[in-house]
Amino acid sequence: MNPCDIIRKKRFGGELNEQEIRAFVSGVVDGSFADYQASALLMAICINGMTDRETLALTLAMAKSGDTLDLSDVPGVKADKHSTGGVGDTTSLILVPLVACCGVKMAKMSGRGLGFTGGTLDKLESIPGMSIDKNIESFKKQVSEVGCAIIGQTAELAPADKVLYALRDVTATVDCLPLVVSSILSKKLAAGTDVVVLDVKAGSGAIMDTYDKSVQLAKTMVRIGNMSGKRFSALITDMDQPLGSYIGNALEVEEAIEVLAGRVEGPLKTVSLTLGAHILRNAGVVETVEKGIALLDEKIRNGEGLKKFSEMIAAQGGNPKVAYDTSLLPKAKYHIDVTADREGYITAMRTGDIGNAAKLLGAGRERKTDVLDLSVGLVMKVRVGDSVKKGDTLCTLHAGDKSDRIAAHNLVRKSILIGPDKPEPRPLILDVVE
Amino acid sequence: MNPCDIIRKKRFGGELNEQEIRAFVSGVVDGSFADYQASALLMAICINGMTDRETLALTLAMAKSGDTLDLSDVPGVKADKHSTGGVGDTTSLILVPLVACCGVKMAKMSGRGLGFTGGTLDKLESIPGMSIDKNIESFKKQVSEVGCAIIGQTAELAPADKVLYALRDVTATVDCLPLVVSSILSKKLAAGTDVVVLDVKAGSGAIMDTYDKSVQLAKTMVRIGNMSGKRFSALITDMDQPLGSYIGNALEVEEAIEVLAGRVEGPLKTVSLTLGAHILRNAGVVETVEKGIALLDEKIRNGEGLKKFSEMIAAQGGNPKVAYDTSLLPKAKYHIDVTADREGYITAMRTGDIGNAAKLLGAGRERKTDVLDLSVGLVMKVRVGDSVKKGDTLCTLHAGDKSDRIAAHNLVRKSILIGPDKPEPRPLILDVVE
Repeated sequence: MNPCDIIRKKRFGGELNEQEIRAFVSGVVDGSFADYQASALLMAICINGMTDRETLALTLAMAKSGDTLDLSDVPGVKADKHSTGGVGDTTSLILVPLVACCGVKMAKMSGRGLGFTGGTLDKLESIPGMSIDKNIESFKKQVSEVGCAIIGQTAELAPADKVLYALRDVTATVDCLPLVVSSILSKKLAAGTDVVVLDVKAGSGAIMDTYDKSVQLAKTMVRIGNMSGKRFSALITDMDQPLGSYIGNALEVEEAIEVLAGRVEGPLKTVSLTLGAHILRNAGVVETVEKGIALLDEKIRNGEGLKKFSEMIAAQGGNPKVAYDTSLLPKAKYHIDVTADREGYITAMRTGDIGNAAKLLGAGRERKTDVLDLSVGLVMKVRVGDSVKKGDTLCTLHAGDKSDRIAAHNLVRKSILIGPDKPEPRPLILDVVE
Repeated sequence: MNPCDIIRKKRFGGELNEQEIRAFVSGVVDGSFADYQASALLMAICINGMTDRETLALTLAMAKSGDTLDLSDVPGVKADKHSTGGVGDTTSLILVPLVACCGVKMAKMSGRGLGFTGGTLDKLESIPGMSIDKNIESFKKQVSEVGCAIIGQTAELAPADKVLYALRDVTATVDCLPLVVSSILSKKLAAGTDVVVLDVKAGSGAIMDTYDKSVQLAKTMVRIGNMSGKRFSALITDMDQPLGSYIGNALEVEEAIEVLAGRVEGPLKTVSLTLGAHILRNAGVVETVEKGIALLDEKIRNGEGLKKFSEMIAAQGGNPKVAYDTSLLPKAKYHIDVTADREGYITAMRTGDIGNAAKLLGAGRERKTDVLDLSVGLVMKVRVGDSVKKGDTLCTLHAGDKSDRIAAHNLVRKSILIGPDKPEPRPLILDVVE
């Protein structure tokens, strides 16, 4: 099948058939579809779109482009979770052990990626001794015995996505619905779980730049995901301000532990438990999401969740005492407060720029080769709607010697908006797609 | 300037400014715009189009991307001609010496390209001894002294076009108006002549697949060309059947000589003289195209045209006697007739496939590296509207040992349609754009 014929069909708005899509996907992996041909087709897809049938075919072809995990010998329902990414978004570390306590196996493979802070893998690596490298057999053994595991992608899951993502990143074709959907879902399908819950962020720190696009993304992912035969749900959650108060790598582990220990309430806990409850409901453990939330909250109160987190750390070579003593986590050398320059209400936050400030401190990567400082980040002291007086601390920077402290300070100051009127409260969970 | 920003702007239908277009064009030449980025932008241009302002900026940036010829020290008006390409399209060999006889300097640099038959350069190389390699000084000297020259592109004219064309060819982005226009015009502008006449083909053997698109191409080229400050005209001429009766390389030289010698009338002569007359009119030599045609016809009748052709051959190292003795041209080994299988009228020809048959015989290139057999080709014995009896010869194949004679024979037979009704005659010159 000639690449030009496939490209031409999409250029003129045609619907690609399964065979053509498979030829494209296998072609980008084996090189018979050159990168300049792939990028031309990606652009045509961006402008002319894809039908559900095409998006499903693309997702399946990408899922099958490399290894696919067979978890059938792990007993019970296996589940996975994906977030489109935000700031202070530590839900995985909380919901994974809690859900595991309820009998659903959490088998999570994460990538590192680029972003405001490191990914889940980087966060876990801030725990002394913790390893995220496991072979498949050892991964499955841990999931069977402990009930949960979060490791790096050792298997080559959906290698087509890797090639395509690298191209999209440099050809202005990242933010395209069928491409985002197939990129996320292909890896989830290849990872072999039965139930997947998606956390689609909406707001100033989200991948999609409007609320409508976030809803469309969530709906499309659930629709295509369910067409594939798995059980998918999606929450659309607020990212108009950081979800948790701690932003960084070790800092987010610390906040996750605080939540698991029952010492911290708030939006991070609410979203984590709601996502976890959707998994429990879709896995048939509970009848309703409300009952799921109650069950998970019980696992916090009775200490089982924190214990499971500690067990998971131990199973991956880390120091399990961290779960009970966060002083064992790496700490930043400098603490610098960002203070309010006037009295008023916090009216809004430029969440993306708060994330960029964390990156300036060294918590996130600009390039894949960047080395992170796992100790640095931000601790937010206010949320939208809070009233502040001049001089009040808005945020504390946790900085290291390599942090660009001045730039981070200025960026945070500009990103927290103070005005005279108290803003309307915005719901935390904006929508649910099932 | 970041390539992604430029690509993104066009992806969402924006108008690129001069600076952005210059960054793109210089980027594809110096490599700062990677080929996969260029192909993504080309696709976005194909789907979202370009305004005249963008097309002009693209044309000028491409024209300036390499060497530009300065012909100011060649006395008189300098002219050039371009055809979008067809079958039996030998007009350059006829009009170049004729126009030169009328005092307008014909300074023509040709490419080889791919096509049904070789380009003008290949045709000229079928003349024993003829060279198409000249440096710029020697080219200008010949144009000054003889009045005309047709050589290969020794200077690096519009190198951006070379890069972009190679990409377009493998990414289904060839047939896109602003890209076709800028590709053709950039080379013409870089070649430094004052007057350019364009021959845009329409019909089954033309680059544009509908008449309307051919008209649009002609109009856009003349509009953008004139915006650049040169004098452009375009004819839209029929390519629903081969223009000349001889198709090949040496064969087309032979037919050009027959026309210049005044022994052959017909469509090839008509189009050649009309194109030449537009040059004479635009150069101010004659007041009307009709007077131009009459003047050029006189140069045939008094033998000056053929003499000038012979002089041009001599100036480029070829055997000038060829002009008076076509038996000196290479001849094909085999002559095979394609005959009518029924009685009737020639109702239509699939001109593109007749061209492809010439290619099967070895007259044209599929790949740049293909070696041509300059002696082979087709001699058409009929035109659309002619009546034939069963067994009449429709076409004679001139074939060599490497020709795929059976495939060519079958293709020609299928490409000449015979029916019971005489078709309506179609005009030869369909439109004129000035």
